[in-house]
Amino acid sequence: MGRWQPDARERLVAAALELFNERGYDETTVAQIAERAGLTKSTFFRHFPDKRDLLAAGQDTIAQLLREGIAAAPADATPLAVVCCGLKAAAAAFTSFNRELAPRLKAAIAASTELQERNALKQIGLSAAMAEALQTRGIPAPTAVLAAELGGVAFKTAYAQWAEPGEEQDLGAMACAALRELHAAAVDLG
Amino acid sequence: MGRWQPDARERLVAAALELFNERGYDETTVAQIAERAGLTKSTFFRHFPDKRDLLAAGQDTIAQLLREGIAAAPADATPLAVVCCGLKAAAAAFTSFNRELAPRLKAAIAASTELQERNALKQIGLSAAMAEALQTRGIPAPTAVLAAELGGVAFKTAYAQWAEPGEEQDLGAMACAALRELHAAAVDLG
Repeated sequence: MGRWQPDARERLVAAALELFNERGYDETTVAQIAERAGLTKSTFFRHFPDKRDLLAAGQDTIAQLLREGIAAAPADATPLAVVCCGLKAAAAAFTSFNRELAPRLKAAIAASTELQERNALKQIGLSAAMAEALQTRGIPAPTAVLAAELGGVAFKTAYAQWAEPGEEQDLGAMACAALRELHAAAVDLG
Repeated sequence: MGRWQPDARERLVAAALELFNERGYDETTVAQIAERAGLTKSTFFRHFPDKRDLLAAGQDTIAQLLREGIAAAPADATPLAVVCCGLKAAAAAFTSFNRELAPRLKAAIAASTELQERNALKQIGLSAAMAEALQTRGIPAPTAVLAAELGGVAFKTAYAQWAEPGEEQDLGAMACAALRELHAAAVDLG
């Protein structure tokens, strides 16, 4: 991957995260975000319904990739292997742009209850997408929900590691490794 | 448990849920909630910072009970048994008041993105409280996080069953049963 070439959407996200960290989420306006990105307010609103939806940027894409990866897994794969296929498909959407912005994203979320809520909802939405796709494969609800929850925790854990400066491993491989570790830990819980 | 005797806090929650279902969360004001409860706006604000915090009512209490239950578990208990102690302690805070309001709470959450977000954050907060308490007992982070996640799913599953009309089982027992089922399913995932 080369250095990212930001399009309007990415420039808006990058500008927003800068401003959130400089002056706080609540104090940042859409007009300021657009100005920092060198774009107009109407361009902002072509890409995002409002300020709080910036964080959910890409959520639909990721959910769709999770679903596709899960649907495409081999018929004889275990539920864990199926989730791994989903996580790898989703990980492919994470570019050097995401990696570069990750520390600012983390700081902005840590400083804003509203962004924490938005992020919580995003994570729940992604687990729900996985659970649904697993059920579509005929995996019954409790197992599907559980596998999806573990998938969600694994992805979150792997993302946090992947976003660390100097980390060079592949996000998908890290997510599947985290999933296997969680499974091993689950076996030992009782 | 006899029929609940609502105090001001409970009356406000009950009034708010009625109004959320009648006219929608966004369209309901604090003044209307207070009026429906037969109380003043200033009484409302003595109990809740604002409208959206109604749903989080009791969250701190539940988190504290989870922590205490986990801390009080026998030294030789497995992580799963420790989480079960936490869930039982928290379940003790759920009264016939909670049971009676559950259908209206469910309907209000289903109809409002903002309440869904608040609820998502609440669930994440409770899992985080469990994970922290498990780590305080010396259970290492990945195992503690996983056990807390399973505990969160188990409690949510048990609460949904418990809130069904005619259900008479004990919430704590249901939560521990759900936890054991999740564990069995987790072992079979790979």
